[in-house]
Amino acid sequence: MLTRQQLLHAQGRTRDFLNRVGIVLTAQEAATIEVADFGLGEIETTGLQLVVYVNTERVCAKELVLFPRQTCPEHRHPPIGDEPGKEETFRCRWGTVYLYIEGEATANPATQLPVGHESTYTVRHEIELQPGQQYTIPPDTLHWFQAGDEGAIVSEFSTRSRDEFDIFTDPQIRRAPIIQ
Amino acid sequence: MLTRQQLLHAQGRTRDFLNRVGIVLTAQEAATIEVADFGLGEIETTGLQLVVYVNTERVCAKELVLFPRQTCPEHRHPPIGDEPGKEETFRCRWGTVYLYIEGEATANPATQLPVGHESTYTVRHEIELQPGQQYTIPPDTLHWFQAGDEGAIVSEFSTRSRDEFDIFTDPQIRRAPIIQ
Repeated sequence: MLTRQQLLHAQGRTRDFLNRVGIVLTAQEAATIEVADFGLGEIETTGLQLVVYVNTERVCAKELVLFPRQTCPEHRHPPIGDEPGKEETFRCRWGTVYLYIEGEATANPATQLPVGHESTYTVRHEIELQPGQQYTIPPDTLHWFQAGDEGAIVSEFSTRSRDEFDIFTDPQIRRAPIIQ
Repeated sequence: MLTRQQLLHAQGRTRDFLNRVGIVLTAQEAATIEVADFGLGEIETTGLQLVVYVNTERVCAKELVLFPRQTCPEHRHPPIGDEPGKEETFRCRWGTVYLYIEGEATANPATQLPVGHESTYTVRHEIELQPGQQYTIPPDTLHWFQAGDEGAIVSEFSTRSRDEFDIFTDPQIRRAPIIQ
């Protein structure tokens, strides 16, 4: 649950991040930046800010903003009907993002798990993305990510986005934001 | 036909455009910027520079750079087998781009057609895109675009890109670059 004040604050901060690197939004986009707290009420720790540029039946493109050390929690994009599930490419534009995927656990990861939610993070193979670096996540595979100390701006290029079908490891999570 | 010197010059100029707005490329990307002269040998007039970030079976994302008044010539993306053809969203990031699509001809367009090739431009409905503005082009519909006086940087979000299937109105055009 997000208060209206938290929403406005996070939206303003997101605009500041994007302005700083010269990413231009329309007035409409700037006013409707999506702020996801995933229902945990700990937006500084677990949260994500999104500008959705386009989301058709075939293609989706977004700008993701993560505040310093903010985490997008572990989830996967399952098949829906005949479609194999969402395929995502994350391209870091600014800052650092640590992406975690299935595979051998990284011995000394660069992040700490959100306190009290450790058991809801099961994939531990770390990929560090600096500006210009990117990684493509196949459909239906678990992943999560956390920004470094400065935060991060990440472009997402993907197939159609239908967040309501996402499956989170943490059963407490509600993807659709509830604004108080 | 493009000389090696023309290719290197256009690649360097493209890097300058992207650097200026803070778009970071990997060394590999910077070294392999695609320069298309469409086989006309008039790169300053008819040409396009591309950085392909990702191109899977389902999703493609590119950065397009147009030099001042450079034109990407008229074409469409036809269906291939069971697929309905490439769907593209163009989002202007910097400069101005004039996009032309099917529909009522614009009375006083902001561009001039490439001299000697006027008859190969048949759609004349103008859409001006400034930074932050975007337009989605449905599959299999004719379109072309030209940058304004400063040039333009345009992000393209699309389904899979298979340039070899593109159909250009000008039968002289060869999409695959030939480097001399």
